[in-house]
Amino acid sequence: MNVPTRSGLTADRSSIADRSLIAEHFHRASQVLPGGVNSSTRVNKALGTPMYVAHAAGSRITDIEGRTFIDLCCGHGAALLGHGHPAIADALATAVRIGFPSIYETPYHEELARLVCDAVPSADRVRFCSSGSEATLHLIRACRAHTGRDKIIRIEGHFHGYHELIYIGGHPPADQLARNRTEPYLESPGIPREFARLVVPIPHNDVDALEQAVERHGEETAALMLEPVNWNWGAIRPEPAYLRRMRELTAEAGIVLFFDEIQSAFKTRHLTVQAEYGVIPDVTTIGKSLGGGLPVSAFSGIAGIMDLFQPVGRVQHSGTFNAHPVPILASLAFVRETGKPYFYETLEALEDRFDRGLKRIIAGHGLNMIAPVSGGRFAVIFGRTTPPSRYEDCLCHDNCVMLRFIKGCYDRGVYLHDYGGGPLHHGFSVQHTMEDLDEALNVMEDALVEMKRDGAVPTV
Amino acid sequence: MNVPTRSGLTADRSSIADRSLIAEHFHRASQVLPGGVNSSTRVNKALGTPMYVAHAAGSRITDIEGRTFIDLCCGHGAALLGHGHPAIADALATAVRIGFPSIYETPYHEELARLVCDAVPSADRVRFCSSGSEATLHLIRACRAHTGRDKIIRIEGHFHGYHELIYIGGHPPADQLARNRTEPYLESPGIPREFARLVVPIPHNDVDALEQAVERHGEETAALMLEPVNWNWGAIRPEPAYLRRMRELTAEAGIVLFFDEIQSAFKTRHLTVQAEYGVIPDVTTIGKSLGGGLPVSAFSGIAGIMDLFQPVGRVQHSGTFNAHPVPILASLAFVRETGKPYFYETLEALEDRFDRGLKRIIAGHGLNMIAPVSGGRFAVIFGRTTPPSRYEDCLCHDNCVMLRFIKGCYDRGVYLHDYGGGPLHHGFSVQHTMEDLDEALNVMEDALVEMKRDGAVPTV
Repeated sequence: MNVPTRSGLTADRSSIADRSLIAEHFHRASQVLPGGVNSSTRVNKALGTPMYVAHAAGSRITDIEGRTFIDLCCGHGAALLGHGHPAIADALATAVRIGFPSIYETPYHEELARLVCDAVPSADRVRFCSSGSEATLHLIRACRAHTGRDKIIRIEGHFHGYHELIYIGGHPPADQLARNRTEPYLESPGIPREFARLVVPIPHNDVDALEQAVERHGEETAALMLEPVNWNWGAIRPEPAYLRRMRELTAEAGIVLFFDEIQSAFKTRHLTVQAEYGVIPDVTTIGKSLGGGLPVSAFSGIAGIMDLFQPVGRVQHSGTFNAHPVPILASLAFVRETGKPYFYETLEALEDRFDRGLKRIIAGHGLNMIAPVSGGRFAVIFGRTTPPSRYEDCLCHDNCVMLRFIKGCYDRGVYLHDYGGGPLHHGFSVQHTMEDLDEALNVMEDALVEMKRDGAVPTV
Repeated sequence: MNVPTRSGLTADRSSIADRSLIAEHFHRASQVLPGGVNSSTRVNKALGTPMYVAHAAGSRITDIEGRTFIDLCCGHGAALLGHGHPAIADALATAVRIGFPSIYETPYHEELARLVCDAVPSADRVRFCSSGSEATLHLIRACRAHTGRDKIIRIEGHFHGYHELIYIGGHPPADQLARNRTEPYLESPGIPREFARLVVPIPHNDVDALEQAVERHGEETAALMLEPVNWNWGAIRPEPAYLRRMRELTAEAGIVLFFDEIQSAFKTRHLTVQAEYGVIPDVTTIGKSLGGGLPVSAFSGIAGIMDLFQPVGRVQHSGTFNAHPVPILASLAFVRETGKPYFYETLEALEDRFDRGLKRIIAGHGLNMIAPVSGGRFAVIFGRTTPPSRYEDCLCHDNCVMLRFIKGCYDRGVYLHDYGGGPLHHGFSVQHTMEDLDEALNVMEDALVEMKRDGAVPTV
């Protein structure tokens, strides 16, 4: 290989080890787990296999063949604390000490609930559950009960979980985009067609479309639901005026304004996007990093909606494993950690270093791409150099280019996740160091330079 | 109190401590959590408060005022291993050692999947997630994708989770039972009425009703779904011929036979009800005890259905927290524990002792009640002495009687959970001792004798 490398790593570590253990494990796992994994996207198509991890520590993951990678996936944003953080290890020790009893409430629950209500402006009260999907499911139910209406206005490109109430109309293929607005796209086989009648997809950052949807469907609409920063599709930021207009329109029309901050909560010193923009919704879901890497999510809102839940009101929210003390203790440790002065200082310093580095690489090599960084996350969008403002602005992103980029980084010791398409998000943790990020940037640059040499990445 | 007591405990421990700490905590928790809890049923109406636990160990839970109770809830069946079991503590230590990385698969996942496929006859392959509701949600999706049909035939009294696909028509109030079969009852506000069109409730153990439902709806029906032992409503057992006829009819009609064994799996040495009865469904959900007290559930089935899931097929099943390594390691420890000879020997000996004790109490005092025991669980049904065979057979169960019974036991140091109505299940763990159960039986007898004296319990 004649391309000068900045990373000092060979470009083809995968050829050094033959990955036969990984291939063998993948084969055996596929006999008992569909695709050898427990989630659709856990086979990284850039590698042809899942990332089977033996152990993880801080900023690094080590695979079952002993290779160590700088982790730039970080649990899709769950591992903002990094792997094996001592505060979470302590929380697990506490859990063992109290016997980790499921179904019982403890004083830890109240303490965590209070911290969350302090952190999230719209939260008078909160409920904890295990996954983001569970959180949006139950909160949609409360919105419907509150309004006596069934429709949900949602925004294209935004993601709110993998259940039948909302896994509709979010990410249509390019050739079905126009049709999505009259006949919303069902995002999986097995979702009954008639469920789509209750979902109204609109384009992002489009005041006219929003006003028309409220005009046309407002009286039947329970909630307007959005990721206030659309991390799940290009990290698209909202126009401030758009958010403000949303707040006005929903208040006038008696529609619940529902911010899905599962990805954004606790990622910046604002703690939420609603606080950053000063636009306060009626209800909010949070999750992802909330558990310090363990499975916790939460839904919250004004008392008038949250007190619809039993045993105060009549709306059902139950589950043996809701708010299990093991993840609750981890979550409490995480939230306390974010309250320490170093936390957002560290994260912001890392973001600044990484953002400058990415911009330098992109500009320096004349690449036609953009990689918005904030909250310890960054999106990678190939095919444009300016920030996108709606779903279709990211359809330029070519996943074949992305897979080659992921593979180039993997071969050099940096792990990026393949989400199977779309300009999704990657990121680091407060346990990553400046040196980690410098090394990752060098690797990313080497991968991109190699791709440019081969004509495999768009240039301006 | 003049009633002779067998338990040797005063009948009114609650008046010794004033419960002011509990009341105060309940007040504070209710400011930030609807009803002060994270699940509808966590306020025990017999106490007027939740059971706020400070710590738990083995068979015992200790509340925040320092009172210790024999736990006869045991996590609704999740804590079959009891609280703070050393095997689970070891699993958590392993999780800390490997840095508990979310979203990555590990060799532990494959090992657990293989053990589950060995244990569940219908399971060629399995997927893990966090809650029972998540498991039934995703498996219904696969049934629909597999058949290209949308309806679900379900059985009254059976419970399959708290989501909009199936939280319909299961437990109608008595005055809506007749109507339930044409216009299925929505079990929570906020569930759109039209979702009920896809649910076909039928009475349990009724071959004619089953044949009629298949005759009438078969061509539109994706799955026939049931708890093969109906633990969530009186522990109703199926007629063997009924199960066999189900298997025939669904096979003929191309309907997926779906056993929800979330509660029953790993509870007896048969491991599943399907193995006990020799009737093998196409797909099975399991959970509850599966995680050794931590939040794990799973869905499984024949390869032809499970391989519909991405990345093999096209059906979506994803989630950051699916199969998180912390609960996966706990689950692996649990399943290994069930494989040790002592496990079911212990459980069966406890069941036998408890069953004999309950029968002696009921017969000895001429009480009009029945309490079927198996798999470490027991149901309590007031108002009948013979096993129920369908939903309406348990409508005799008076929850005011149940609440008084729960309070009588609580005051004497035994914790039973209030589910807000219905003849639900209670139970013990392999860490309970014969002495624990004898003490619990004495307490239950004292409570019932006091109730009988006051005319507060039905007699024959």
